[in-house]
Amino acid sequence: MSSEPENPSSSTAPPPEESGEKISKKAAKKEAAKLEKLRRRQEKEEEEEASRKTASLSIEEESFSRNYGDVTLNELKSTEDPKAGKWREAVEGNEWTDVRELVEAMAGTEVLIRGRVHTYRHVSSKKGFLIVRQKGCLVQCVVTESKENHVSVNMVKFVKQLNSESFVDVIGYVVLPKDPVTGTTQQVEIQVRKVYCVNSALQQLPLYVEDAARSEADIQAGKPGANQDTRLNFRVIDLRTATNQGIFSIQGWTQIGFIEIHSPKLLAGSSEGGSAVFRLDYKGQPACLAQSPQLHKQMAICADFERVFEVGAVYRAEDSFTHRHLCEFIGLDVEMAIHKHYSEIMDLVGELFPFIFNKINENCQKELEAIRKQYPFQPLKFLPKTLRLTFAEGIQMLKEAGVEADPLGDLNTETERKLGLLVLEKYNTEFYILHRYPSAVRPFYTMPCADDPNYSNSFDVFIRGEEIISGAQRVHDPELLTEQAKRFGIDVETIKMYIDSFRYGAPPHGGFGVGLERVVMLFCGLNNIRKTSLFPRDPLRLAP
Amino acid sequence: MSSEPENPSSSTAPPPEESGEKISKKAAKKEAAKLEKLRRRQEKEEEEEASRKTASLSIEEESFSRNYGDVTLNELKSTEDPKAGKWREAVEGNEWTDVRELVEAMAGTEVLIRGRVHTYRHVSSKKGFLIVRQKGCLVQCVVTESKENHVSVNMVKFVKQLNSESFVDVIGYVVLPKDPVTGTTQQVEIQVRKVYCVNSALQQLPLYVEDAARSEADIQAGKPGANQDTRLNFRVIDLRTATNQGIFSIQGWTQIGFIEIHSPKLLAGSSEGGSAVFRLDYKGQPACLAQSPQLHKQMAICADFERVFEVGAVYRAEDSFTHRHLCEFIGLDVEMAIHKHYSEIMDLVGELFPFIFNKINENCQKELEAIRKQYPFQPLKFLPKTLRLTFAEGIQMLKEAGVEADPLGDLNTETERKLGLLVLEKYNTEFYILHRYPSAVRPFYTMPCADDPNYSNSFDVFIRGEEIISGAQRVHDPELLTEQAKRFGIDVETIKMYIDSFRYGAPPHGGFGVGLERVVMLFCGLNNIRKTSLFPRDPLRLAP
Repeated sequence: MSSEPENPSSSTAPPPEESGEKISKKAAKKEAAKLEKLRRRQEKEEEEEASRKTASLSIEEESFSRNYGDVTLNELKSTEDPKAGKWREAVEGNEWTDVRELVEAMAGTEVLIRGRVHTYRHVSSKKGFLIVRQKGCLVQCVVTESKENHVSVNMVKFVKQLNSESFVDVIGYVVLPKDPVTGTTQQVEIQVRKVYCVNSALQQLPLYVEDAARSEADIQAGKPGANQDTRLNFRVIDLRTATNQGIFSIQGWTQIGFIEIHSPKLLAGSSEGGSAVFRLDYKGQPACLAQSPQLHKQMAICADFERVFEVGAVYRAEDSFTHRHLCEFIGLDVEMAIHKHYSEIMDLVGELFPFIFNKINENCQKELEAIRKQYPFQPLKFLPKTLRLTFAEGIQMLKEAGVEADPLGDLNTETERKLGLLVLEKYNTEFYILHRYPSAVRPFYTMPCADDPNYSNSFDVFIRGEEIISGAQRVHDPELLTEQAKRFGIDVETIKMYIDSFRYGAPPHGGFGVGLERVVMLFCGLNNIRKTSLFPRDPLRLAP
Repeated sequence: MSSEPENPSSSTAPPPEESGEKISKKAAKKEAAKLEKLRRRQEKEEEEEASRKTASLSIEEESFSRNYGDVTLNELKSTEDPKAGKWREAVEGNEWTDVRELVEAMAGTEVLIRGRVHTYRHVSSKKGFLIVRQKGCLVQCVVTESKENHVSVNMVKFVKQLNSESFVDVIGYVVLPKDPVTGTTQQVEIQVRKVYCVNSALQQLPLYVEDAARSEADIQAGKPGANQDTRLNFRVIDLRTATNQGIFSIQGWTQIGFIEIHSPKLLAGSSEGGSAVFRLDYKGQPACLAQSPQLHKQMAICADFERVFEVGAVYRAEDSFTHRHLCEFIGLDVEMAIHKHYSEIMDLVGELFPFIFNKINENCQKELEAIRKQYPFQPLKFLPKTLRLTFAEGIQMLKEAGVEADPLGDLNTETERKLGLLVLEKYNTEFYILHRYPSAVRPFYTMPCADDPNYSNSFDVFIRGEEIISGAQRVHDPELLTEQAKRFGIDVETIKMYIDSFRYGAPPHGGFGVGLERVVMLFCGLNNIRKTSLFPRDPLRLAP
């Protein structure tokens, strides 16, 4: 990016005759252009030479080219189809190994890892060292041109041009390095066989992880650091340092790899562009109370927290006088990086809730008995393996029962309840997932389905015919996100910070949110959410 | 309470001549008065008869009278002095047993329980059945006049006049009833030896637990219920039902008997009367963001949750531009009923934090290493048994080191840090409790010391010379609370709801609050709280 005005006759540019400095600048520019030309020519020659040398491989090259490349957004949208592309073919049936798990004992085995391009050191057109980072752990991946391994010089070139902080999937063999590797956390290397760019970060980042990670001693010794304001402004990059990963792991870590986060409820402007927000004055700035931790939990994912959850207050200023709405409620929000598709999120939901239900039934027998005595209810019927239906299947079930519902619209409360009864009758469960919702009824940041953009990679979960959970894969591609925001009539300028956080390298991800008072209400078959809120807040009640 | 106008000539009362009904009402009133007179006479005769019969016991009665009575507030303020009164003498060396733990196997053993007066059934001047309730569990306590057991008729009378929802300490023997007890959860009885009223509830309550606990079926069968608004208005009573104890136990329960609560952050008016609050419009009502969960966690205790904790956002609109203040931070708040004195709270703090520190040191070695690499720090020095010093001792240590500090004032940041160094030098710990703070520097709801009202049953906790925790015993006596609020210049009308919640029966209690970002900052020896807040909010920063 040049800071020079594009049009020299522009009124903001000083007239050339006024400035002697301008002339030397021009000369410098000329010189720089000459050097750049030279550099390009050398690069071209190098490439041509490599190309000549690999001419004999040209037939193989076509098959070798399947071993590297960019993962298309379409592949990341689709669900199970392995024909989607070369990346999908390469990872199909493979499990991802965490970088921190790469140890000497794995030498000789093939692994698939996903991480960020931390740094790259170019040795020659035939060899390079790619350092991949995942949650603060680093591993050296060696890319070496090899006919035997189906690694072409073009693959080396592909790796060379990856922007740092981009996400890559690397498939390769774990090898023991001859000399101890310095500068990485893992003491093994990966001999790369395949490499795919899952998501590309901007070439120029507003903050570099190395600078944010610099110690005081290094800064005093003259190395570049980053000041606190820059770090906090670009917190989504700053949080990726090993230090910050450590600080926030200490604060909340669970055994299944989720980090508990606490996102701010005080936001500048108005959150998500909604109208039903509580507004307040924050030291002279307009502010509002968060309607959900959506933005911040996604930012935590872009900051390499991988799997996060939050239990915290959610604020809705809606005038809903129903049995199931509150103006302040406790949300459980989950967000997670996904490897292949959004069914990974549904897998979690489908396992987590039956687990919770079983635990309550086991550990809270006396409590349930006490509740049942005053408010009789039947135990919730749920399956060990949670039922999953598509929205279209739901519409079809309703249709067969004589209930018409718009296949591209939303279900109303009554229709949801009716569907709940049909599902109970047919599948004997009061807990199920309905997915592939019409795109039109989901937020702009919802990932559309690969095969039909009228539907989206999203789901709702129902208990006793009432919706309790909404979840989806998110759009992590800034261009598609911008396009969808515009289509939904959102002024993209107001969500610039949100969109920008996906430009610094973002993994495919998704999550869900659930109102905890509502879960307890429906689990216990209670008729009013005020019964499960300690000190409820509704449009008329602000006390005690 | 009569709904008749007290002054019949009042303009709101209809003139007598207009209403024929009035005359019959008058007649009814006359009749009622006659009956009431009769009832009182009978009661008096009964008492006199009892008194006559026990005349021979009059010498013993003086010693028997030590076995019942009201616990003085002074006893509940003081710490270790067993001479404080008959209650203190009776419970000294005794442990409280939970009502839910009373089972057949305990028959013959003496127990001490604390609970609320649920109901009382009077049999005669010599016998009564007191049902005691603790966290939704009920046990029948039999009070029988007995020379052998040192139980006088006056003690039976004392029990008879206890208001329901008052707190009592009962000492007695566990006995197996001849017939199965109906209407209680526990299948054993207690033969009462001693009974003390720890806290008295109002005689007339705005809501009765039995009414709040009524099932739909019972209400339809004609029994009195309570509507939702009444129940939510007097939530502190409503939450005492077994049903509500069940609902909120399901939502969050820990192994050491603490229930996790979520209190509302949206409050009517301005919380705690402070000026540094964020104000907002709540559907036309003035509202503010909670500066602490103080009110609601205390209400949870008055609602029989016994031991609660909350992890949630705390809002401070202060213009503090320091390394350790944020406008929104995560507070860990704890509140608990106490049996004897506030050292029970300090015991918890003194055990909990070393436990947490040890767990972090054990489980987060890699994380601590990563943090230390960028921000070098020494491991925190703390003792297995947390050091406890009085404020006066702290002042004395400072004095000996040549630092003058007001013995009835607060310590400033610099003096706190100095004291931290002196404590480290003398006791080799960077974590300690300083207690018995001057009353003048603590909130109005802090319990004064029994031996000197200039000091209070309060404490602060320090890490590396910086305050991280503030805690205290609270005033649970509404009269003393009113008096102290006035002395602090608080308009008691604005905190009426808060004070009133102690009129419906409240146990002695206390608790503490701690900022979690500050704990992590100081544990890791970091120099700025923005390093341990995910997306910090300070007077100038409201994004990202």
